[in-house]
Amino acid sequence: MSERTIKLFIHALLSEENKKFLRGRLPAGATAVFLDELTGPARREEFARADYAYGNPPADWLEGEDIRLQWVQLYSAGFSEYQQLGRSIPVSNLHGFFARPCAETVVGGILALYRKIDELTLLKSRKEWIGSALRARMKLLHGKKVILLGTGTIALAIREILVGFRCELSLYGRTHPEARFRTKQELLAALPEADILINTLPGTVKTKGFVSADLLQAMHPDAIVANIGRGSTVDEPALLRALQERRIGGAVLDVYAQEPLPVDSPLWNCPNVILTQHTGGGSAEEERGKISFFLENLSRVLAGDKPLNLVDLRRGY
Amino acid sequence: MSERTIKLFIHALLSEENKKFLRGRLPAGATAVFLDELTGPARREEFARADYAYGNPPADWLEGEDIRLQWVQLYSAGFSEYQQLGRSIPVSNLHGFFARPCAETVVGGILALYRKIDELTLLKSRKEWIGSALRARMKLLHGKKVILLGTGTIALAIREILVGFRCELSLYGRTHPEARFRTKQELLAALPEADILINTLPGTVKTKGFVSADLLQAMHPDAIVANIGRGSTVDEPALLRALQERRIGGAVLDVYAQEPLPVDSPLWNCPNVILTQHTGGGSAEEERGKISFFLENLSRVLAGDKPLNLVDLRRGY
Repeated sequence: MSERTIKLFIHALLSEENKKFLRGRLPAGATAVFLDELTGPARREEFARADYAYGNPPADWLEGEDIRLQWVQLYSAGFSEYQQLGRSIPVSNLHGFFARPCAETVVGGILALYRKIDELTLLKSRKEWIGSALRARMKLLHGKKVILLGTGTIALAIREILVGFRCELSLYGRTHPEARFRTKQELLAALPEADILINTLPGTVKTKGFVSADLLQAMHPDAIVANIGRGSTVDEPALLRALQERRIGGAVLDVYAQEPLPVDSPLWNCPNVILTQHTGGGSAEEERGKISFFLENLSRVLAGDKPLNLVDLRRGY
Repeated sequence: MSERTIKLFIHALLSEENKKFLRGRLPAGATAVFLDELTGPARREEFARADYAYGNPPADWLEGEDIRLQWVQLYSAGFSEYQQLGRSIPVSNLHGFFARPCAETVVGGILALYRKIDELTLLKSRKEWIGSALRARMKLLHGKKVILLGTGTIALAIREILVGFRCELSLYGRTHPEARFRTKQELLAALPEADILINTLPGTVKTKGFVSADLLQAMHPDAIVANIGRGSTVDEPALLRALQERRIGGAVLDVYAQEPLPVDSPLWNCPNVILTQHTGGGSAEEERGKISFFLENLSRVLAGDKPLNLVDLRRGY
């Protein structure tokens, strides 16, 4: 095959700054086409001519007989929308990329509940000083019993942070060597003692609704639930009932059964609930970091090596 | 001296539960009189008959020639209101008691700023989803350069927590062996590189206005300031100007020049400012813990030992 240009399709809305950053670092002989510089059917047509793609294109674009795509680097960790693909194009995700920001959002949310930073924010907006009246309702994260569902990069980043709070931490995972709980029965037996349940499970067929009514029922009335995994892994109506009936003490929710969270969701009105609107993975350096990862991974592919973070679309992780 | 009843004066408003807790644990032969069970001049009269006191009575009560008080256990760490006393009654404070809750409030406040939990709380109150639009403005505490002013129990509790965030941490203190900065000049030279300045200094004549206009001027525009020490140790008008002119990126303030914070303070309107209303030391177990400390310390006094946490009123710590 004669030497030809490598065509990249960037299915992401990048700032001019980040486009420039990417263009300045393209491999020799490569050109990049950006989603927002095309309109209508030209998008799909250009996509069909691309060798490699960055971003999360519509799943059906990957089904076309006409495409010559050899690899996609998603800009997310999740990839459930691609799990039903008939064709097997290699797909990499951003596994691990969001661990630190997600861990900080979930610990920040828990501290906000314990130290009443949500209430203090609302008081500030009303210029209302209540001060010491809040003190007796404050809690400490120090020494709390925490159960982490999942043993991936987010769970391990949370674990590292919680050491400084001297929390008593246990992992739930089916295969991780350090997991204390391996079955739902073991988990159910331990939950009455837990102060905090943090869900980091990925969205798969097996984890759907994992945080179920019976798990929530086992928790004590001061316990809090955090979800930084996937919305599908929590039985949201059951969680809502537990919150409304004060059978648990609060929640920190980054992900939801439906996103954006519908305006009529009763979660908006629940006290002691922090809604972080699926921003957990965000950071000012996020786009730049993702592009850098794509470029590094692309250089592996071009060198004939296996890219990092190849996902198994059938298994779901 | 013939055996007589030991009289305790409790200058604190305790819940019935905590009164019962205290009464159930009094030393043999001791009786307790509670502030809220007396009215008018009877309060001062009963105080004059007490051998030991718990709480923070008006400073001039300790000046009377008629009192027979031998020791006071304050329910605060601060004791500046007693520094001008002419008489030298032994006074213990609650040094160290508030370290953990204060550390959690300040780290929770910093995470709230970095992970936008204040904005997300206001969005929740309006049922408004903006989600990913916030992501590019989020920051990570991970790896940040932090300078801690002070080397007391609060500073060391904060240091322990920040290990899990892999912050690069330096202490400022005149005498602590681990302090990296010992003079204001050394501090000024280091500040341009700092991401977070956390003030835990006690309120003394020497620390008044320590966080001054020149310190704030040295900081970069994304840097944030936290104050969990004393309001007097920060030049509040200079801090306000730095915030309003966006010369610093935000603040977490637990203490203020005047408390309650006056309703016309421009701090109420400053974005990127978390006001925790002097609740930093609070926790649900706070009153119970303070009473337990008093009872333990009282048993030392009654055994003829020196009580813990005796303060030097002249030096101020």
